[in-house]
Amino acid sequence: MEETVLKSEAVFKGRVINLSVLDVRLPDGTQSKRELVEHPGAVAMVALDESNNVLLVRQYRIAASRIMLEIPAGTLHANEPPLECAERELQEETGYRPGKLESLGGLFVAPGYTTEFIHLFLATDLHESRLQMDDDEFIEVERVPLAEAVAMIERGDLIDGKSIAGIMKVARRLGI
Amino acid sequence: MEETVLKSEAVFKGRVINLSVLDVRLPDGTQSKRELVEHPGAVAMVALDESNNVLLVRQYRIAASRIMLEIPAGTLHANEPPLECAERELQEETGYRPGKLESLGGLFVAPGYTTEFIHLFLATDLHESRLQMDDDEFIEVERVPLAEAVAMIERGDLIDGKSIAGIMKVARRLGI
Repeated sequence: MEETVLKSEAVFKGRVINLSVLDVRLPDGTQSKRELVEHPGAVAMVALDESNNVLLVRQYRIAASRIMLEIPAGTLHANEPPLECAERELQEETGYRPGKLESLGGLFVAPGYTTEFIHLFLATDLHESRLQMDDDEFIEVERVPLAEAVAMIERGDLIDGKSIAGIMKVARRLGI
Repeated sequence: MEETVLKSEAVFKGRVINLSVLDVRLPDGTQSKRELVEHPGAVAMVALDESNNVLLVRQYRIAASRIMLEIPAGTLHANEPPLECAERELQEETGYRPGKLESLGGLFVAPGYTTEFIHLFLATDLHESRLQMDDDEFIEVERVPLAEAVAMIERGDLIDGKSIAGIMKVARRLGI
C-alpha cells in the first residue's frame, strides 16, 4: 500500500513552508507525481480559565479572506519541543502562562499534501504573563464559555479545523 | 484588522495546488510577506450504515509518511457543487451511493497558509454503487462502530483533522 519516493524536486523554499514535487512509485508499480508542502509542525491550545471559558483568538486570515476565530496556536521553531512551544505561544497570543499543559493528541491538517502535524494541548491554571507577539500578528482575545464554543461550532461560526477538533475533544472529556 | 494584498507572485502551478507569495499591507501600515497555497476545496463524508457503523478509508499518505485512517474525502473538480462531489467521491472510495446527504458545515484545514475549505457531510441511506477510483488511489474500506471511531480518536489512532471534526460532530449530534 506504501508509495516510494523516486525523486524529489525542491520548487520553493519559504519563510514558513517549502514546496517539493515528488516522483513516486505506486503500490501497483506505476509512477505518479505528488505535490508536497513541507511545514515544521505546530501547536494549538484549548486554554480554559477557572470558569471553563475557552480563550479564543480573532485574527484576519488571508488564505480564508476573512477574520476568523481560532484557538491559540503557533508554528514550532527549529528543534523546539511542542510543550515549550505551547507555553510560549499561549503567552504571546493571549497573555497567559499555563500552569498545566496536558496532551490532547494531535492531527494532520491535510495529509494529502502537507506534512503539517499539530500537537493539541489542554491548557489550564492560567496566570497573566505577556510575551511579545510576532511583528506581523494582529490578534484579539475573547473568552467564551466552553458550551458556547461548541454551539458556535454547531452553528458554523467557528470553522477552523484544529479548533473544532480541540474544542470537541475537551467538551467530550468534560461532559459538556 | 484586515490585510491588503499589494502584489501576488505565482511561484508554482501544480496538479492539485498552486503556490503564491503575497506582499501584504498589515493593519499597522507596515508590509509583510505571506506564503499562500491555493487549493480548489474539498468534501469529506461521515458515512453511516444502518447500524451506525462509520465507513473509514485506509490509505498511504506520503505527506504523513504513514498509512492513515480517514473518512472518505476528495477534491472538488472545477465548478463542481460540493453535494455532487460528495456523492461522486463516496461511490469512488467506498462503493456506496448515499441516499441522503446532510451538511455538517465545514472547515478551513490550515487558514494560516492554505485556502482549502472542506465541506463536511453526513451520508446515510447507503446503497451499493461503485464508481472507478482515480488511477493513483489505493484505498481499503473499513467499517467501525461510531462509538469505536470516537474511542480511536481519543486513543490517538485516528489523527486526521477533518475526520476528527466530522466524527465528533456526528457523535455529539447522535448522543453517542
